[in-house]
Amino acid sequence: MESVKIGLMGLGTVGSGVVRLLEDNGSLIARKLGFPLEISKILVRDPQKPRAVEVDPSLLTSNPDDLLDNPQLPIVVEVMGGTSPAREYVLKALRRGKSVVTANKDLLALYGEELFQAAREGGGDLFFEASVGGGIPIIRPLKVCLAANRFKEVIGIVNGTTNYILTKMSREGREFQEALQEAQRLGYAEADPSADIEGDDAARKLAILASVAFNSRVTYPQVYREGIKNVAPQDILYAAELGYAVKLLAIAKDWGDRIEARVHPALIPFSHPLANVHDEFNAVFVVGDAAGELMFYGRGAGSLPTASAVVGDVMEAAINYKQGIRGRILCTCFYRKGIKPMEEVETSYYLRLLAEDRPGVLAQIARVFGEHKVSLASVIQKRLVGEFAELVFVTHLAREENMRRALKLLHHLPVVKAISCLLRVEERGD
Amino acid sequence: MESVKIGLMGLGTVGSGVVRLLEDNGSLIARKLGFPLEISKILVRDPQKPRAVEVDPSLLTSNPDDLLDNPQLPIVVEVMGGTSPAREYVLKALRRGKSVVTANKDLLALYGEELFQAAREGGGDLFFEASVGGGIPIIRPLKVCLAANRFKEVIGIVNGTTNYILTKMSREGREFQEALQEAQRLGYAEADPSADIEGDDAARKLAILASVAFNSRVTYPQVYREGIKNVAPQDILYAAELGYAVKLLAIAKDWGDRIEARVHPALIPFSHPLANVHDEFNAVFVVGDAAGELMFYGRGAGSLPTASAVVGDVMEAAINYKQGIRGRILCTCFYRKGIKPMEEVETSYYLRLLAEDRPGVLAQIARVFGEHKVSLASVIQKRLVGEFAELVFVTHLAREENMRRALKLLHHLPVVKAISCLLRVEERGD
Repeated sequence: MESVKIGLMGLGTVGSGVVRLLEDNGSLIARKLGFPLEISKILVRDPQKPRAVEVDPSLLTSNPDDLLDNPQLPIVVEVMGGTSPAREYVLKALRRGKSVVTANKDLLALYGEELFQAAREGGGDLFFEASVGGGIPIIRPLKVCLAANRFKEVIGIVNGTTNYILTKMSREGREFQEALQEAQRLGYAEADPSADIEGDDAARKLAILASVAFNSRVTYPQVYREGIKNVAPQDILYAAELGYAVKLLAIAKDWGDRIEARVHPALIPFSHPLANVHDEFNAVFVVGDAAGELMFYGRGAGSLPTASAVVGDVMEAAINYKQGIRGRILCTCFYRKGIKPMEEVETSYYLRLLAEDRPGVLAQIARVFGEHKVSLASVIQKRLVGEFAELVFVTHLAREENMRRALKLLHHLPVVKAISCLLRVEERGD
Repeated sequence: MESVKIGLMGLGTVGSGVVRLLEDNGSLIARKLGFPLEISKILVRDPQKPRAVEVDPSLLTSNPDDLLDNPQLPIVVEVMGGTSPAREYVLKALRRGKSVVTANKDLLALYGEELFQAAREGGGDLFFEASVGGGIPIIRPLKVCLAANRFKEVIGIVNGTTNYILTKMSREGREFQEALQEAQRLGYAEADPSADIEGDDAARKLAILASVAFNSRVTYPQVYREGIKNVAPQDILYAAELGYAVKLLAIAKDWGDRIEARVHPALIPFSHPLANVHDEFNAVFVVGDAAGELMFYGRGAGSLPTASAVVGDVMEAAINYKQGIRGRILCTCFYRKGIKPMEEVETSYYLRLLAEDRPGVLAQIARVFGEHKVSLASVIQKRLVGEFAELVFVTHLAREENMRRALKLLHHLPVVKAISCLLRVEERGD
């Protein structure tokens, strides 16, 4: 049977993986589809640059119109990353009626609505399984397999770099900077690691997950985020003594009219399935009203895992193209829910601080909490640091704005030397 | 828009869940589909019997032809369980061009080929997401999302009853019988628990998983199985001291020309994601050549979790029906691989036995292993039981037939009082 031709935009880590996977498993894929897939154009910035995979040089082009204006290419795969020029190219492809498969979380998390609008105009498919969780199937399971569920919460460990760093810090007692450098040496962190360690990457993925799970558009700027830089090895140790792991969590909850969406390091009980997700692995935990607790675990990044998701999408797009039924599952954001401001979010807190080591100090601190309606679950004096006492507080559920006000006062309290670390606590729901 | 009408065969645990879920989330489901789903006939044995859900009595019938001969019902849901009369009804429905959604593992694991043949003749869909792992999406992820992968292995904890019992035994040091009784009291085990505890239920699910993952039909009788009755609390304790959890594992591996498929209790390293699947939860771990290690975790049974999978399938069948594109993903078993006989399987073993407590005994036992090419990784004397020594052996990889021959000889060795427990060891692949 005649092959379905594909245009590939980008030949970096993921693009090379797509080429390699279609080479390695091309015959199996053709057997499953009933026809072969064929990459017939590849858009690159510099056709002369050496590549990780061998590619017929005649496929390479630096002119996007060789793909976008090419009526022979019903499917375009966008694995360039970034929003410019990816946004322009993807919109053009969709409006011209091509189906687009993208791994681009930046694009989806900012311009999802615009992209789906363009897909609707053009009549093609827009698939983005690879944009969250790399090789882990999560978008299609939420959209199709679990479509009968109303979802209450989605919690993800969706950034491998930070999970690797926190695992290292936890297992070996390393400081953050040291663990980051090791991650960079091993290729788990980029030279400029800020998007990972500051939570931006996870926030983009959470925007996509929340939009799909709650049927209401959430964009990247709407997600509250904090990175992991302030987590110290002793916080991980103290958390463990309390029965918790420390993870960078991407948390979204549906409160009916409003959605809560936040990325930050958090304590999570060891009994929670996410607490056992180690090293560079990712996982997404969701709770459906019918299916209950579910977790999807696997490799959230890397050339072949991400290519696995991309090619899976391409296979469905190709079947749809052959059968003339493209565009059957497009945007599912039919609700218009608001976003709950972070100030109104309720959570428990872990707080480590240094204070003077004398009678009455604890009472002063506790009074500040009490005056701001923050109720304490436990206070433990851990050790002496010089002449100061290191104290760890765990609170009951409290409103973020109350906690912030309390912290501001504590900061100025003469007996408090330093507020060392504030983390949130995510208990297992019921 | 006009509703799509569904015939429901069976109104037990799962059937009631389907009715309840379509009631509770009917408007959300209609919003997603663009049209409502409507149950318009329900086949039951006794229409007078009281039910867990309220149902309009006019929907109930004890005559299967009210569904099977009804041209108004394009989709039939089979949640009766068992093979007779379910097989006859499902075949009839498929041959008459209806799409069938089934949760019936018995049926699929024995008659999968025949069912798919009937679906092909009739032109409808045959969906069976609920037959393995209850509410966990696993069939569609393997068939669609991960379709670009060649799978090397599938390992599942796919029976909640045995996982609950083993978790209880592990946490509380309980004996098997005691833990079983508690499981029965809580409704996690049936009055006749043999299909669960002897591994038959898990073997059926493994047959389905292996068929889907390896694109070659595996049937229930081809799966080797052993139950968990011989596992004692001290085996779980000793395994933990060695760094392993004890789980009833359903293991399938693709060796290219042949498939290995076995269900038995096994030691699995604590670092393996499956080792952290506790209580009545299920999980399926798969390794794809591109995606790498993946795990799908959730509730493997229960009214609403199973209904979640059933209704998800019904939603896709209904879209396909409306769009006139049914039958697009049917049987994917296009290979004809053989089954590797259990005698030829290679694995490591954990063996606990009682032997006389005097010099030379260990040498006699070790000699038997050596003569059968079973090489020992470790031997530990655990304690004295009366006048006998309790010994725990862990072997390197050995052929099952060699181990069996060695065991037969050990059994007759005068210094060996009793062979107490033999378990296999499943290391994390690389």
